[in-house]
Amino acid sequence: MATFRLALIQLRVSPIKSDNLTRACGLIREAARKGAKLISLPECFNCPYGTDYFPAYAEQIPGESTHKLSEVAKECGIYLVGGSIPEKDAGKLYNTCAVFGPDGRLLVTHRKIHLFDINVPGKITFQESQTLSPGDSFSTFDTRCKLLVYPGAFNLTTGPAHWELLQRGRAVDNQVYVATASQARDEKASYVAWGHSTVVSPWGEVLAKADAEEMIVYADIDLKKLTEVRQQIPIYSQKRSDLYAVEAKQP
Amino acid sequence: MATFRLALIQLRVSPIKSDNLTRACGLIREAARKGAKLISLPECFNCPYGTDYFPAYAEQIPGESTHKLSEVAKECGIYLVGGSIPEKDAGKLYNTCAVFGPDGRLLVTHRKIHLFDINVPGKITFQESQTLSPGDSFSTFDTRCKLLVYPGAFNLTTGPAHWELLQRGRAVDNQVYVATASQARDEKASYVAWGHSTVVSPWGEVLAKADAEEMIVYADIDLKKLTEVRQQIPIYSQKRSDLYAVEAKQP
Repeated sequence: MATFRLALIQLRVSPIKSDNLTRACGLIREAARKGAKLISLPECFNCPYGTDYFPAYAEQIPGESTHKLSEVAKECGIYLVGGSIPEKDAGKLYNTCAVFGPDGRLLVTHRKIHLFDINVPGKITFQESQTLSPGDSFSTFDTRCKLLVYPGAFNLTTGPAHWELLQRGRAVDNQVYVATASQARDEKASYVAWGHSTVVSPWGEVLAKADAEEMIVYADIDLKKLTEVRQQIPIYSQKRSDLYAVEAKQP
Repeated sequence: MATFRLALIQLRVSPIKSDNLTRACGLIREAARKGAKLISLPECFNCPYGTDYFPAYAEQIPGESTHKLSEVAKECGIYLVGGSIPEKDAGKLYNTCAVFGPDGRLLVTHRKIHLFDINVPGKITFQESQTLSPGDSFSTFDTRCKLLVYPGAFNLTTGPAHWELLQRGRAVDNQVYVATASQARDEKASYVAWGHSTVVSPWGEVLAKADAEEMIVYADIDLKKLTEVRQQIPIYSQKRSDLYAVEAKQP
């Protein structure tokens, strides 16, 4: 697939889990009808984002939510990045992303490794680490990555300051497409998400961007374009693997 | 020094080396009079940026240009990041930055490790690697870095697309101040520099920015502010050094 359509579901998340699941699946079907082959949900799509909610909404994987994601991926014949859900396992809670293939098969799960703690006085205080445990393993592939998909949930402080910047930075640093899927903004929620689900090109251009409301963001990913950028500025041939390396360790 | 004034000399570089040296030292004196304690020159400040120029302008270190930098650093009592000059050593050419202390002592030299090659059809083609050799060693310190100073020379293609983005990205990724010093723009040069020397805060805000002309950019660096940002979003306590590390290798 040298070109394909990507869709990001900027879901408005309510406190009713079954409603979130139903509407997420409905929007996935709509995106698939419009030609999307790869679809992402936002971080914490079945549960309001907040440490108070995580324990009550947590599920095992497989479980109710991932079962529904598997079904809808198969029904639509699409790759589905299942945002994230609070996962419970052996007495701990994780912020976990499950990814499904077009046959409904669970391809990989990824437990968030770097938990999000913030304390900007007068603006926002939040600590994922109050209730969540970090994952301890990577979900990596052998090929040189061409698209990074981040289900995320920035807020009204970090959102305007860092959300688009970090995506564009990652895109140019790695010469990859970057896509971020956020919850829609709910001003009454305890944690108010920034929204603005975004797709960025390997040159760092914003290709598509939501505002704060519930909506689907579409972008056509062109891997020929990515190859061109990598030829134009050949950072990988200038890379000095003789001088440094990023090494994974066994925890 | 919890706070100090930084100055970036956005020098207009001519083909006359002695003129570049004289005017660079003049602007350094002006910046020191206005209270700057750390001053940076741009990449290739004594020589037009271009592979045709590097061999003819190259010097050994110590040599004429670094001697002048040492003198002016001592005269003004300032730390001086000497941009870069084409350096010749043992039959090879390097793009080398020399840094001086307020006593005029050479503190460190850094040979550019990642050479800049680019080929954007119809826009710009340039290959440092045609004439330059890359450096093979790091210039690192044991403390956690608080300010990154990049003498740089982006162009009219990468400048608008990536110059500010990469600085703000590095600032937020590392929660550091970032400063970049460019040559002023010369539309008649073979390589037209973007200019726009910039200082960015650890939160990713642009604190000061030049346009394209010759000028000095000033910013007051406040390390208390940096400490606050690191407390507000404590990325280093979330860092998973148990899972990965960047390792330096012996070449």
